[in-house]
Amino acid sequence: MATMQDVAKLAKVSISSVSNVLNGRTERLRPETTARVQQAIRLLGYRPNQAARQLKTGRNPVIGLLVPSTANPFYGQIAAALESYAQRKHGYRVMLCNTHRDRELEARMLEDLSSFGVAAAILVSSFDDERHIEQAIARGLAVVSYDRAPGQDRGQGIDHVYADNVEAGRLAAQHLIEHGHRRLAFVMPAGRTNSRDRKIEGFLRAGAQAAEPVSAQVYEGRAITAYGDSELADIGYELGQRLAGEPSPPTGVVAVNDTLALGLMAGLRAAGKSVPQDVSVVGMDNMVLAAFTHPPLTSIAMPVAAMAQAMVDRAVQRITAPQAQAEQLRFEPTLVVRGSVRAPARTGHGDSP
Amino acid sequence: MATMQDVAKLAKVSISSVSNVLNGRTERLRPETTARVQQAIRLLGYRPNQAARQLKTGRNPVIGLLVPSTANPFYGQIAAALESYAQRKHGYRVMLCNTHRDRELEARMLEDLSSFGVAAAILVSSFDDERHIEQAIARGLAVVSYDRAPGQDRGQGIDHVYADNVEAGRLAAQHLIEHGHRRLAFVMPAGRTNSRDRKIEGFLRAGAQAAEPVSAQVYEGRAITAYGDSELADIGYELGQRLAGEPSPPTGVVAVNDTLALGLMAGLRAAGKSVPQDVSVVGMDNMVLAAFTHPPLTSIAMPVAAMAQAMVDRAVQRITAPQAQAEQLRFEPTLVVRGSVRAPARTGHGDSP
Repeated sequence: MATMQDVAKLAKVSISSVSNVLNGRTERLRPETTARVQQAIRLLGYRPNQAARQLKTGRNPVIGLLVPSTANPFYGQIAAALESYAQRKHGYRVMLCNTHRDRELEARMLEDLSSFGVAAAILVSSFDDERHIEQAIARGLAVVSYDRAPGQDRGQGIDHVYADNVEAGRLAAQHLIEHGHRRLAFVMPAGRTNSRDRKIEGFLRAGAQAAEPVSAQVYEGRAITAYGDSELADIGYELGQRLAGEPSPPTGVVAVNDTLALGLMAGLRAAGKSVPQDVSVVGMDNMVLAAFTHPPLTSIAMPVAAMAQAMVDRAVQRITAPQAQAEQLRFEPTLVVRGSVRAPARTGHGDSP
Repeated sequence: MATMQDVAKLAKVSISSVSNVLNGRTERLRPETTARVQQAIRLLGYRPNQAARQLKTGRNPVIGLLVPSTANPFYGQIAAALESYAQRKHGYRVMLCNTHRDRELEARMLEDLSSFGVAAAILVSSFDDERHIEQAIARGLAVVSYDRAPGQDRGQGIDHVYADNVEAGRLAAQHLIEHGHRRLAFVMPAGRTNSRDRKIEGFLRAGAQAAEPVSAQVYEGRAITAYGDSELADIGYELGQRLAGEPSPPTGVVAVNDTLALGLMAGLRAAGKSVPQDVSVVGMDNMVLAAFTHPPLTSIAMPVAAMAQAMVDRAVQRITAPQAQAEQLRFEPTLVVRGSVRAPARTGHGDSP
């Protein structure tokens, strides 16, 4: 690869002249000199080295992105939206890290970012214990957190971009109640996270506020061990079989996300239950493929593009103005009605809770 | 963030002593000195700066990854497999670029990688015109190409890691023929790419080699304009409606990938055709969610994990030994039988081509 020295040699000028041209300080150079340097840069295909530049400015136009796994279509979608916007709008690059929801790995990746000169990270995490995040911030890393409602860490310099998950849970349950469902279930993998807790809160609230008595139960499947791949859908599948085997199965189910919802529908089918004839299902995330499942999945949409843009804007702002105040940006979910919900069948069980 | 100077000051030693400790050259230091430096490093939370290190060694432990879009679940899966392996096995980081199959953007991203000091790129591209790749190689970037069979660019220093797409097309068509299908279709977006051409070659070959006469037709939908999001599934949906409207519709369809296959099945359903009762479908990629669609999608599996590892290994090898010979690594696809294929119904049309 050509160096600044190569350019100087070919153009027969000093290195400081090359540096002046590169930095736009051409007023004190003769026009022929400037032209010769520019030609040499073109001929050699010379690109100023960002690493060297970064050492001078202390800034690196790179944002770290930590997600559980881009193998989960929803995070793949977020990664694409974030990276494209960071590049197009700010000229920033994205360094990708799949954390597999492993706290050790997440902590090490945050450390690595600092040592790579990356000054900001967008973090899709969910651990209650967030000392590793605090340590990263203490080392000077700006952290934008996705989908953790601001809580005890408010004011510690973490920007929060999050969906109103209470509203998401409420919307989903409310939609089922409006269709006449009285036995509701919320399904998810084992283990509480901030966003799961909020979704459950909204789900239970809708049940409690309904005009008629509603049974609203939370079912936890097994815990995720290796985030990504098919595990989330597998857990949904198992939950589908489990619900189908209940003596008085729920007629309306809210899934914590669409990938789990797809597994759930497959598990219900395998156990002889049709969706939506026997069981109605509402997913969350409104992932791209939700429109193409059979039946098409009714889901709660998070404004992914707007949230991705807000996260990138915040990260860049914190890099360029490190003393800027951390912000809390909440986004509202919406219900996308497709074909996985209908009124419950009138069976021998009745439709009372 | 703490600097090497800060460590030296706190430990009351010279910077070169700190450097010696960091680089494991402690044999000439007094044990107390080493201990003091190590303590200062711990106290200050000092991390050696990778950017500075890179300027010295000329190497940056970062690989660029250019994919059309991680919003396509298959590329999201590849990105996760690649990044996790690069990190775990080699301690390398991955810089992500979504190219949206835009040649200009792809060329600019390859340039940017060089200026960031990234020495190798894994490229999921498909352009016939590959001058931009040649230029990147001329600038010193090592390029590992995914899923382009080596052709005219053999020997130009590009490593190729690819699936045997001819075999993939053949396997898919063969499976349909074995189930009695005689009117076959291959569906894809408009525009030929290297991998699409190979898949079609195998598809047509299976038709030509069948014991009985088989009609094997290629249907192109509209072209992809903004890769990612739902467009690929949308194109499949439109193709499903189009096939259903043919006077003598194909009974067995091979889709160029699973995302398009999901759209295709939805489009067929919307036009009143059941899968697999009326039309059988074989996808390609065997993406994670293929097992959870309704019906579960029979698909051609590419050995993603093995291919991802081979790509990373090649990229690292070319960084650490730039003169190493480029390699061509071919991987064999396999058929994964699920529920989207069955024998064609005996209709008034008969099942002859």
